[in-house]
Amino acid sequence: MSQSEHILALSGGVGGAKLSLGLADELSPGELTIVCNTGDDFVHLGLNICPDLDTVLYTLADWNNKELGWGQVGESWNFLDSLKRLGGEDWFNLGDRDLATHIVRSELLRRGMSLSQVVGELCQRMRVEHTVVPMSDQTISTRVHTADGKTLMFQHYFVRDRCEPEVSAFEFSGIDTAEPAAGFSKAIDNCSAVVVCPSNPFVSVDPIFAIPGVVDRLRQRQVPVVVVSNIVGGEALKGPAAKMMKELGMPMTALGVAQHYSKKYGDLFTGFVLDSQDAALEDDVRALGFATIVTNTVMLTLHDKTELAREVLAFASTLRKA
Amino acid sequence: MSQSEHILALSGGVGGAKLSLGLADELSPGELTIVCNTGDDFVHLGLNICPDLDTVLYTLADWNNKELGWGQVGESWNFLDSLKRLGGEDWFNLGDRDLATHIVRSELLRRGMSLSQVVGELCQRMRVEHTVVPMSDQTISTRVHTADGKTLMFQHYFVRDRCEPEVSAFEFSGIDTAEPAAGFSKAIDNCSAVVVCPSNPFVSVDPIFAIPGVVDRLRQRQVPVVVVSNIVGGEALKGPAAKMMKELGMPMTALGVAQHYSKKYGDLFTGFVLDSQDAALEDDVRALGFATIVTNTVMLTLHDKTELAREVLAFASTLRKA
Repeated sequence: MSQSEHILALSGGVGGAKLSLGLADELSPGELTIVCNTGDDFVHLGLNICPDLDTVLYTLADWNNKELGWGQVGESWNFLDSLKRLGGEDWFNLGDRDLATHIVRSELLRRGMSLSQVVGELCQRMRVEHTVVPMSDQTISTRVHTADGKTLMFQHYFVRDRCEPEVSAFEFSGIDTAEPAAGFSKAIDNCSAVVVCPSNPFVSVDPIFAIPGVVDRLRQRQVPVVVVSNIVGGEALKGPAAKMMKELGMPMTALGVAQHYSKKYGDLFTGFVLDSQDAALEDDVRALGFATIVTNTVMLTLHDKTELAREVLAFASTLRKA
Repeated sequence: MSQSEHILALSGGVGGAKLSLGLADELSPGELTIVCNTGDDFVHLGLNICPDLDTVLYTLADWNNKELGWGQVGESWNFLDSLKRLGGEDWFNLGDRDLATHIVRSELLRRGMSLSQVVGELCQRMRVEHTVVPMSDQTISTRVHTADGKTLMFQHYFVRDRCEPEVSAFEFSGIDTAEPAAGFSKAIDNCSAVVVCPSNPFVSVDPIFAIPGVVDRLRQRQVPVVVVSNIVGGEALKGPAAKMMKELGMPMTALGVAQHYSKKYGDLFTGFVLDSQDAALEDDVRALGFATIVTNTVMLTLHDKTELAREVLAFASTLRKA
């Protein structure tokens, strides 16, 4: 990439973090801003917990637990064990090491830092050189509406209830008065392309675009917006996305994802990356107005991640020239 | 003991917890109230930490770490390791298991419970059947004045600075407006004797007696107040008591302890328990007006603890009859 180019990557948790790592491997710190969903954030046991931000930070810092697929490497669970013994709320998995991040973050927030400042501080302490920013410094809380008429805080749905309730809709509480964080705003103004990582459309990507002004400002920029499908071969590689699509009456395929983005954001999203397993869907995705590429999007190794990043960047580059 | 008798035990940390365990072994739950010093309590990393209360609770629950002499059994240190890696304040040893207690307590306090209620809740969850209460529900903070004119928060003196600064005086910030906790107050009214555990006179015992009304109310009750010397053979078995006595210009002996209590509380303290190693000091202690016994006060085994408890109770009983 030339120095004048800047990629704005939007990420949820695990899948997004994988492509973010690939992008960070391909791009210099000045060429990339990773914006993380904060709709999953919540206060638990008095601690400010930001699951997607931490997954991205741990992944970029190489602190991530490769066996578990989440949390920190070398994690232990004595805190949780003792919490359980004390009758504390133990439904959310807080590892002993992970806890340090939440305690440091909560302390810095209490001292009056914005979430952006805290994340900047954590990046520095973790030696993460690329820019990682929260989507907003204001509190935005994803709530899950269920088929039986309940409204659940996202982590209650996701962790406590193990994604079992049937979903009917999503709500981003606090979104109306939220603003994109300064780093996100700057990247909207400066970016040469947007990469939407393979994250859950409903609860990872939509909240980011739901922040007032984001869609309009990106539309004005006329930069390519490339999505990597989070559904491969009819399944979400991680998390409840496929189950949600089924419950929302959508096809549980990459085409379903493309339809969702097309319906929601019109022609803002210009490129769609399909996995090789879903090559048969390419024509249908194109018919929705997307440019497409088909490649391996299943990122098991670091090589997979950098390869996909390279292809996505090249794809965005062709869309920019078009 | 007859059912109408009730022992009010006053305790700091480790030494006090040992005798408290002995007393709990000798007395039924209805016959004992253990009041813990809270002057060492502080808020650290947003957590409410009560070192003496926890030491007593862990000891009574048999959760205490016998190797370390403090903290929880089966403790691990991954939180602290990660906190250090994140540049957090790591001078205070917070074990992964111990952390659960602080998190649960902080959460309950935030929900509006008093410290007494929280301790009651923790007792229940830890299956501690004897009554343990904080000395007060108000915040009382021991501050250490040093010879070079500084004022240190107790834990900064005790842990961060490893008791290295030379002390000149102690202050119990917040004491003027504090009241004894309800359980303490009730025990003052009901007790048939007071046992002052072998704890640091200056920073564990004095803060308890410094709460307005405590000395006067106990004096009116005319019950025996028996102290177990925390100094044995010229040394504190644990902690900086001997070093403090030296710096305050007092003899570093059990006699020094007796002189301190005599000077401070006059004839309120009626009995003094000396260790066999200090038998030679008995006459001098008696000359101060104390009744005395000499026995083994070094509590290494559970048997040592129950034996000492038994002797102290018998001693108190003779003083009551006198």
